[in-house]
Amino acid sequence: MSLKHSESVTHEAKSSTLDPRPSNRLASFPESLATIVIERVLPELDGGRYPVKREVGDRFEVTADIFKEGHDILMAALRYRSSGESDWHETPMRHVENDRWAGWFDLADNTRYDYTIVSWVSAFESWRQELSKKRETQTDLQSELSEGYALVKAAAQRAGSADRTHLHEHLLRWEASDSQHTLIRLALTDTLADLVRRYEERVALTVYDRHLTVIADRIRARYGAWYEMFPRSQGAVPGRSATFNECERRLPAIQAMGFDVLYLPPIHPIGRTNRKGPNNSLQAGPEDPGSPYAIGNEHGGHDAIEPGLGTLADFDRFGRAAHDHGMEIALDFAINCSPDHPYVTQHPDWFYHRPDGTIKYAENPPKKYQDIYPLDFYCRDWRGLWQEMKRVLLFWADRGVRIFRVDNPHTKPVAFWEWVIREVQAHNPDVLFLSEAFTRPKMMRALAKAGFTQSYTYFTWRNSKQELTDYLVELTQSEMKEYFRANFFTNTPDILPEILQQGGRPAFKFRLVLAATLSPSYGIYSGYELCESRAIPGTEDYLHSEKYEHKVWDWDRPGAITDYVATLNRIRRENPALHEYENLRFYSAENEQIIFYGKMTFDQRNAVLVAVNLNPFQAQTARLTIPLADLGIAPDETYQMHNLLTDHRDLVIGETYSIRLDPHTEPAGIFAIRRWTRREQDFDYFL
Amino acid sequence: MSLKHSESVTHEAKSSTLDPRPSNRLASFPESLATIVIERVLPELDGGRYPVKREVGDRFEVTADIFKEGHDILMAALRYRSSGESDWHETPMRHVENDRWAGWFDLADNTRYDYTIVSWVSAFESWRQELSKKRETQTDLQSELSEGYALVKAAAQRAGSADRTHLHEHLLRWEASDSQHTLIRLALTDTLADLVRRYEERVALTVYDRHLTVIADRIRARYGAWYEMFPRSQGAVPGRSATFNECERRLPAIQAMGFDVLYLPPIHPIGRTNRKGPNNSLQAGPEDPGSPYAIGNEHGGHDAIEPGLGTLADFDRFGRAAHDHGMEIALDFAINCSPDHPYVTQHPDWFYHRPDGTIKYAENPPKKYQDIYPLDFYCRDWRGLWQEMKRVLLFWADRGVRIFRVDNPHTKPVAFWEWVIREVQAHNPDVLFLSEAFTRPKMMRALAKAGFTQSYTYFTWRNSKQELTDYLVELTQSEMKEYFRANFFTNTPDILPEILQQGGRPAFKFRLVLAATLSPSYGIYSGYELCESRAIPGTEDYLHSEKYEHKVWDWDRPGAITDYVATLNRIRRENPALHEYENLRFYSAENEQIIFYGKMTFDQRNAVLVAVNLNPFQAQTARLTIPLADLGIAPDETYQMHNLLTDHRDLVIGETYSIRLDPHTEPAGIFAIRRWTRREQDFDYFL
Repeated sequence: MSLKHSESVTHEAKSSTLDPRPSNRLASFPESLATIVIERVLPELDGGRYPVKREVGDRFEVTADIFKEGHDILMAALRYRSSGESDWHETPMRHVENDRWAGWFDLADNTRYDYTIVSWVSAFESWRQELSKKRETQTDLQSELSEGYALVKAAAQRAGSADRTHLHEHLLRWEASDSQHTLIRLALTDTLADLVRRYEERVALTVYDRHLTVIADRIRARYGAWYEMFPRSQGAVPGRSATFNECERRLPAIQAMGFDVLYLPPIHPIGRTNRKGPNNSLQAGPEDPGSPYAIGNEHGGHDAIEPGLGTLADFDRFGRAAHDHGMEIALDFAINCSPDHPYVTQHPDWFYHRPDGTIKYAENPPKKYQDIYPLDFYCRDWRGLWQEMKRVLLFWADRGVRIFRVDNPHTKPVAFWEWVIREVQAHNPDVLFLSEAFTRPKMMRALAKAGFTQSYTYFTWRNSKQELTDYLVELTQSEMKEYFRANFFTNTPDILPEILQQGGRPAFKFRLVLAATLSPSYGIYSGYELCESRAIPGTEDYLHSEKYEHKVWDWDRPGAITDYVATLNRIRRENPALHEYENLRFYSAENEQIIFYGKMTFDQRNAVLVAVNLNPFQAQTARLTIPLADLGIAPDETYQMHNLLTDHRDLVIGETYSIRLDPHTEPAGIFAIRRWTRREQDFDYFL
Repeated sequence: MSLKHSESVTHEAKSSTLDPRPSNRLASFPESLATIVIERVLPELDGGRYPVKREVGDRFEVTADIFKEGHDILMAALRYRSSGESDWHETPMRHVENDRWAGWFDLADNTRYDYTIVSWVSAFESWRQELSKKRETQTDLQSELSEGYALVKAAAQRAGSADRTHLHEHLLRWEASDSQHTLIRLALTDTLADLVRRYEERVALTVYDRHLTVIADRIRARYGAWYEMFPRSQGAVPGRSATFNECERRLPAIQAMGFDVLYLPPIHPIGRTNRKGPNNSLQAGPEDPGSPYAIGNEHGGHDAIEPGLGTLADFDRFGRAAHDHGMEIALDFAINCSPDHPYVTQHPDWFYHRPDGTIKYAENPPKKYQDIYPLDFYCRDWRGLWQEMKRVLLFWADRGVRIFRVDNPHTKPVAFWEWVIREVQAHNPDVLFLSEAFTRPKMMRALAKAGFTQSYTYFTWRNSKQELTDYLVELTQSEMKEYFRANFFTNTPDILPEILQQGGRPAFKFRLVLAATLSPSYGIYSGYELCESRAIPGTEDYLHSEKYEHKVWDWDRPGAITDYVATLNRIRRENPALHEYENLRFYSAENEQIIFYGKMTFDQRNAVLVAVNLNPFQAQTARLTIPLADLGIAPDETYQMHNLLTDHRDLVIGETYSIRLDPHTEPAGIFAIRRWTRREQDFDYFL
């Protein structure tokens, strides 16, 4: 925050008028002349009930309707303070048009900021404007000039010593001047106005009713490529769990693919009672490892490590190694207990009970999940249970974990998440939470508003051009953009979408392009780079899912698209336009099977256009309409289209560009658009 | 409010959970398990900052998104109380679809109601649903049935004596039953569910964050025909003011035209200093009466009567006479003081002063209004000034005045209006305020939100079909409909619109039809019925305006449309569809000069369609598309179109109806649509 832009708050800021008025005032006599209307503040969620979200380094812009009766000249300022501060900073707002005002401050730190708006009448500015008007038509302005003199004198009395001296100099010159013409010129100088404005009384000072909040998350909240893998399947020895030490050997290959986040399904001891066998069968053999989502056995619960993977020390070492490979670990937070979880004996009161006193397993009639005991968030000792959940999260946060992917948050109270996320972030504001809520849209949105940093989405089930366009417009252009950050996973251990089962390698390629370029956060679940597409027929479940088995993978098997993944992630890294969310725009491609969209940075310096053939079987052609106006390119200007996937370059004039996309060679084009200027490094191509 | 629909609130309603949560909670531990999400409540203005408006007798419907994690069965209720009550009433809400709930209560009284929403989990309903599902697939349900028994028993302990007896009977039968099949049937009966639901514990009880408010105004707030007249011009003797007694003689003629409200410009003593002469000239002759908006002289100020009109007793008598003629008086509340107003000597501190101590007249450079001293709502004694304004309003309210038309409210603080209207309505909830704010849209809306019952609009300047459609859609279909009630004046003493100056009698006719049928509240300024259209050239000002002169009118002069006005007001009275606001819909007429729209009552019993030729010079024809689906008429059904202006009737089948409107005979058609049934009283016409 530059000092020039921001000023510390003057005396009024600490007066009682700072307190927001109650939202539905009674007819009691107003306490002060807070008569300015401040409304339609943006951003503001549900009347300020929920915070909006941004990232550190963002310029946070706030706009509002601000107006008052009559012709007085208004001033307005944005007030803000970070969560640690009690005093407000203040930065001026400017009138844009039609009673709309705008102001901004920089989100310098990874924390929460409160903000609100204050406005007041500048008597001196109002006086200046009246004087300017009257000098055109009126000859005797002695009375008006006396008024101005009184305003300057009052400001001088309030001014700090240096400025008081300046103001007194102005007053002396004013007194010495004998011609009305000179006096008017003196009175209307901007230097004088700047000085007076700083110290004059704030007439009709009005503070907006509400304190609003913006969360400034770290950049990873918005931008990152995720890789999900089962640690126990990262080794080379069949029939037993791989260890964290074996996982460590996989890190260079994953780093080479260019991922930022390494997400691990639960790493805790797995229950033995009613353990699931291969393909989710009810009977497990003695060697079957069970689902890592049935957490807890004699080795411990949510704060323990499954012995087959190693020890806590091994986990710590693996985390450091991942960090050394440019990645951070995301842990799964799955609030499920196996019947063997320590809570079952330590806190039987946290579970649901039958009248005979036995504990209930999970069920959603007619389905039964006998390997899992759900926790009762409404039990008598709910406070103890909630606190324990917080303790578990902080336990891992203390070991350096900064991202939690939360399993099925929509089956626990939204109010619990609102509380626990805020508590954890109060200790560690850099901790991110990804909501795995595949449920009704209103619940998904409510969880995001309540505090989840990111959310899974319906992306896996959006295939047609219209579906994708509608969904992305909703995510990036509606009010959802203020609080809901999508993380586009191409697949998950539970979702092998039909398009991948049917579309083969071309589908794996173009769905990857869509995920990686439509959303700044995206992820794949390992096996995707191998185009693994064997499903249990008629389902979206993987055949022989590693959720229930030890697996050994051939990471170099034929048909793998490992290099393609690496290329995508390199393109993402090199193009800041792809790090943003709200900058997505859809453009015209005259073919219902080719989707065409683009992103550019605010300063137009980086612009990327993407065309994808959504048909995995047939080549498609389309005439694309290049958005020249958006790109700042003149209709007759030459520009370069550089296909970053193929490294093919083209020189173009005009808005029409024809394209052919063959899924069997390359189903997508990702074009960097470069204007042709002599300063351009690609100059030699144009000769 | 029927007892069946509404129930008094059970014990939880008075517990601490009733208090709304602060709108931006801190991370402190939740005080209770209020875990249900209640959001997107409609209607709700600016997060509850302002009340919404309805009229007495309305059924007030409230909807909201209400949901919770998991599969529990939710209950929800609307809570409300009128301003005099401290306890809440409660009425059930029903689930509509997709987590949207709706409920309603009747606005029985002319007062303010607070409302909010409460939701909770019904353990018994959740249990019933689970049992119903399980009985399909599971044989042993003993444990489940025991759970239900416990829930019924707990409810019985809470029940009132009569219901407790019933519940104990159920429990006895339960205990006596030996077959699981019989038990299940017993457990799932609706009678039992109804009883238990009434007394079971409200699990996860959640109250919406905010108390919202709805104002139930009397019907005149929405529906009424206004007639504006200068009392001093209602006589027959040239050169002097008519008296209230002479005005009384005009009442039968005004009643015959069918008006509900008789609105009088200021009736107070008029200033002498710098009094304005004819046509707003700066020099008044000794006999010139001056503008009634320059209020106050030696006879008194805002609580006095201009002696030329009579005495306070005369005014009271005139008010009673108006009432006897089916009309009520609307008084002008114009906060202007002439230099001779008593305030000037009694409260010189309420005015603006020059440095030399003299009082400033009104000006908006370069314009000067030397006959008026504006009051300074920000003066040191602003509290005294505001209280005096309230006293003046209550003075007239005490004399039976129940409508104030407020002159230029946008030049006084919005916060003042919010306070003073609420204060006056606290004493007299039936007092209505009409805002004469011809200013920027945001200020007009802010005044309405702050409390004005009705507002003047831009109607006088909306002439084309597109302009009228856009404006009316905004007024009746946007959020404005919740708080902004339009009153469509065809003309005012300050606005003789171009269309009337140019369009002559046809324009006077169709602008009247538009005003009277587009808006349930509308008005004319006297002279309109005479088609008075002489303007000061190049302006919208009347030539020889009665604002500055004593006038004598020939109320029977040739070309008058007095009967047309009477017909319009009769049609309005006889058709309840025209008493509503939000029910306006526009329909297709294949001619840019013919506008076609309709209104119908909620029950479709009264339906009116209106077609207006907006061209005052040329006849126009158009094919209208009758909205058969809206009207509930089948495509092959015969229906009657009865033109209420001409009394011409037509028998129609199908959606197309052709019309020709000649401005020189009849520029509009107002059609009552009647379905043809044997019960129809118009049966003989169809033979």
